[in-house]
Amino acid sequence: MTDLTLSDDELGLFTDLYELTMLQAYWAEGMHGSAVFSLFFRNPPAYRNFVLACGQEHAARLATRVHFPRRQLDRLETIGLFREPFLRWLEGFRFSGEILAMPEGTPVFPHEPILEVHAPVAEAQVLETVLMNLITTETVLASKAARITLAADGRPVMDFGMRRMHGTDAALRGVRAYSVGGIRATSNVLGSLRYGLPPSGTMAHSFIQAHHDELEAFRTYGQLYPGTTLLVDTYDTLAAVRKVIRLVREEGLQIGAIRLDSGDLGALARHARDLLDAAGLEHIQIVASGGLDEWTIRDLLVGGAPIDRFGVGTEMGTSVDAPSLDLAYKLTEYDGEPRLKNAPGKQLHPGPKQVWRFSDGNGRYSHDEITCRGEHRDGTPLLTPIIRDGAPLAEPPGITSGRDRAWAAIARFPELMRELEPAPTPYPVQFSEALQRLRRDTIAKLGY
Amino acid sequence: MTDLTLSDDELGLFTDLYELTMLQAYWAEGMHGSAVFSLFFRNPPAYRNFVLACGQEHAARLATRVHFPRRQLDRLETIGLFREPFLRWLEGFRFSGEILAMPEGTPVFPHEPILEVHAPVAEAQVLETVLMNLITTETVLASKAARITLAADGRPVMDFGMRRMHGTDAALRGVRAYSVGGIRATSNVLGSLRYGLPPSGTMAHSFIQAHHDELEAFRTYGQLYPGTTLLVDTYDTLAAVRKVIRLVREEGLQIGAIRLDSGDLGALARHARDLLDAAGLEHIQIVASGGLDEWTIRDLLVGGAPIDRFGVGTEMGTSVDAPSLDLAYKLTEYDGEPRLKNAPGKQLHPGPKQVWRFSDGNGRYSHDEITCRGEHRDGTPLLTPIIRDGAPLAEPPGITSGRDRAWAAIARFPELMRELEPAPTPYPVQFSEALQRLRRDTIAKLGY
Repeated sequence: MTDLTLSDDELGLFTDLYELTMLQAYWAEGMHGSAVFSLFFRNPPAYRNFVLACGQEHAARLATRVHFPRRQLDRLETIGLFREPFLRWLEGFRFSGEILAMPEGTPVFPHEPILEVHAPVAEAQVLETVLMNLITTETVLASKAARITLAADGRPVMDFGMRRMHGTDAALRGVRAYSVGGIRATSNVLGSLRYGLPPSGTMAHSFIQAHHDELEAFRTYGQLYPGTTLLVDTYDTLAAVRKVIRLVREEGLQIGAIRLDSGDLGALARHARDLLDAAGLEHIQIVASGGLDEWTIRDLLVGGAPIDRFGVGTEMGTSVDAPSLDLAYKLTEYDGEPRLKNAPGKQLHPGPKQVWRFSDGNGRYSHDEITCRGEHRDGTPLLTPIIRDGAPLAEPPGITSGRDRAWAAIARFPELMRELEPAPTPYPVQFSEALQRLRRDTIAKLGY
Repeated sequence: MTDLTLSDDELGLFTDLYELTMLQAYWAEGMHGSAVFSLFFRNPPAYRNFVLACGQEHAARLATRVHFPRRQLDRLETIGLFREPFLRWLEGFRFSGEILAMPEGTPVFPHEPILEVHAPVAEAQVLETVLMNLITTETVLASKAARITLAADGRPVMDFGMRRMHGTDAALRGVRAYSVGGIRATSNVLGSLRYGLPPSGTMAHSFIQAHHDELEAFRTYGQLYPGTTLLVDTYDTLAAVRKVIRLVREEGLQIGAIRLDSGDLGALARHARDLLDAAGLEHIQIVASGGLDEWTIRDLLVGGAPIDRFGVGTEMGTSVDAPSLDLAYKLTEYDGEPRLKNAPGKQLHPGPKQVWRFSDGNGRYSHDEITCRGEHRDGTPLLTPIIRDGAPLAEPPGITSGRDRAWAAIARFPELMRELEPAPTPYPVQFSEALQRLRRDTIAKLGY
């Protein structure tokens, strides 16, 4: 066992300390009333016209497995804050509540609950940290991937990011998120095997360097992997392209593509394309990589660069322009009464909710409305129960269903939502009259 | 088993596909020559005057455990690129080489090798992805933490970030990195138990909200956890501070601190301090949190805010201003011959190296020099062997040694290196004459 492992048994301790001290306080007070917690974000991340909710169905299922085996409680006891009777209670802990969530791949906007938990307050409280950590990761990565997919305008994008991502878990679950975000292949072997996104890879500069001769390295690789991609920028890119042409024309090597990884990718792609076409090798594709993001990809394509596929690493792997999401998990009801907090700039709407998405006559999405749970509308409700009585209601949906849902939805939004630049006005999201009234009444009752 | 687990057995598959296809090519060609790979970064991340190298000793030890059990090879075989004799060879794979590394907590600058691997080319190649992923994560997080520690100017900083970090592995190993970066406590229960950073936590708004009355929530918590920190911004911050004062003065509740989590933290801290002091409660500390980073902490302290401790989450957890590091792992020697690549903007110096750190007469660091491995200097050599013949040379050093080393070193750098703003001139790092000559000779030999 290495410390890269988070075992099932440790899932309960993957939490903020205050969740457990609050649990002990609820337990000590006999507060077992039912609570509603809502998971949402307040501010759209930089430039994003939408966020692609991802990981919530998976996270909800993992949450039902949170438990506290005795040997983990013995570790917890060393902290010195917890009493033995509470630890015994914790040993019997099982999540028994209900979780509603938006389906994976749903485009989501500020204040819309992505997930709601209904459970005895302790059970709902203790899931906070693990749900937020898991959903943040996949949602941030899927949202960035969707932008890159949009920029590539139909050309396949491959994930090359695992080496620069934040740890092993992000690198692996990132593959799930990328798949939902429209990425078509991954260099990540284990991620590919776990989540079914096709594996993809070319060669590293080191392989060329280790050989006495670039041509010899190309020949070896091409013979071993017919249809492979050869990396041509180790020394002199266009000289390397000529070597590829020689190997294909004179030795019949089967090469699928060349990869450009540095320099002026647009100019090099054009030169390389000319050389390949002049040699009758129109079928050899051009792959570009090297610090790419949605903006550079768009600029290359606007500039007419004849690039067929993109490999994207660091920028997507850490979502460089917006690595975080201000996801919150807030109590909105306790013991049947609506609750809120009223800290400046962090307003909250009380009670369980539903999110409705409305279409115009042409099937295009027009606006969303956040309502109290009990209200009914003619639109599509986005939150559906996926966990009941602590158990999943169905098998987890496949990743392809998340991707299909995401891209069907993205196609139905107003054109400007698919642009890289922020739309002049955000997508309209309304709070229902009843929800606004409930908020006013709750504030009045609290006396603030 | 959940998919949050990366087992020892799967460590070998936690890699980019091309590492394994290159391995098969090396194997097919009988290329078993010894290689040197060097791990370094080219560009300093935004604003950083130094990067705190972290995770490399730990990562090197994990790398020695990379292996390919048959059941994992059976999964690999499904990809359809690997031949059975190669898979059998992979089944016997063990790292047999040498790894040199800078000690954890070493401040490091562009182009300086943080770690070098000497091994048969396939063995060194296949460690690329896992080493980079592990070291990137901890180095990025430790470097951000060091800036926040510097900004807090002696006041303790607590890690509150796990919920917004990229996945479970980053959240957990982040605690190691934060410890090296000077952070004094963490809210992360499992991270604290694994790595020994003291656990810390207060309460969430939901705890206050779930109670009918804020005062009642404070009383319960204070009675259960003498010396605890109470969160005062759920409704009206100063009203809440008055409640805390009442509970302490009239009921003898033992409260260690109050926490401000929203609003104008400087003004609220001053008002709260005045109220507490006027009540004779000078011993009750003020903790601030809520979207803090090194800049806001510095501004608060420059403005005279009477804040005793800081809780930092998202900004540190994802290193928002610089979430990535352009770490590279490059072949610099094969079969006894220096190698390099010559892609534009990605120049490389060939051969195994040493990094020397020099001090002036007053014990202050003056400059670094990167030399060929065989050269000797009067400075302190930063790379030392930690793995030999595939096995660790010593027990892994404790985390406190990394922290002590980091902060002793940071204190010895020129004053401007400790500022948040980039120093007008970067810390001087020279390449030795011999190394520059070797580079010229290697380029001449390659004919580029």
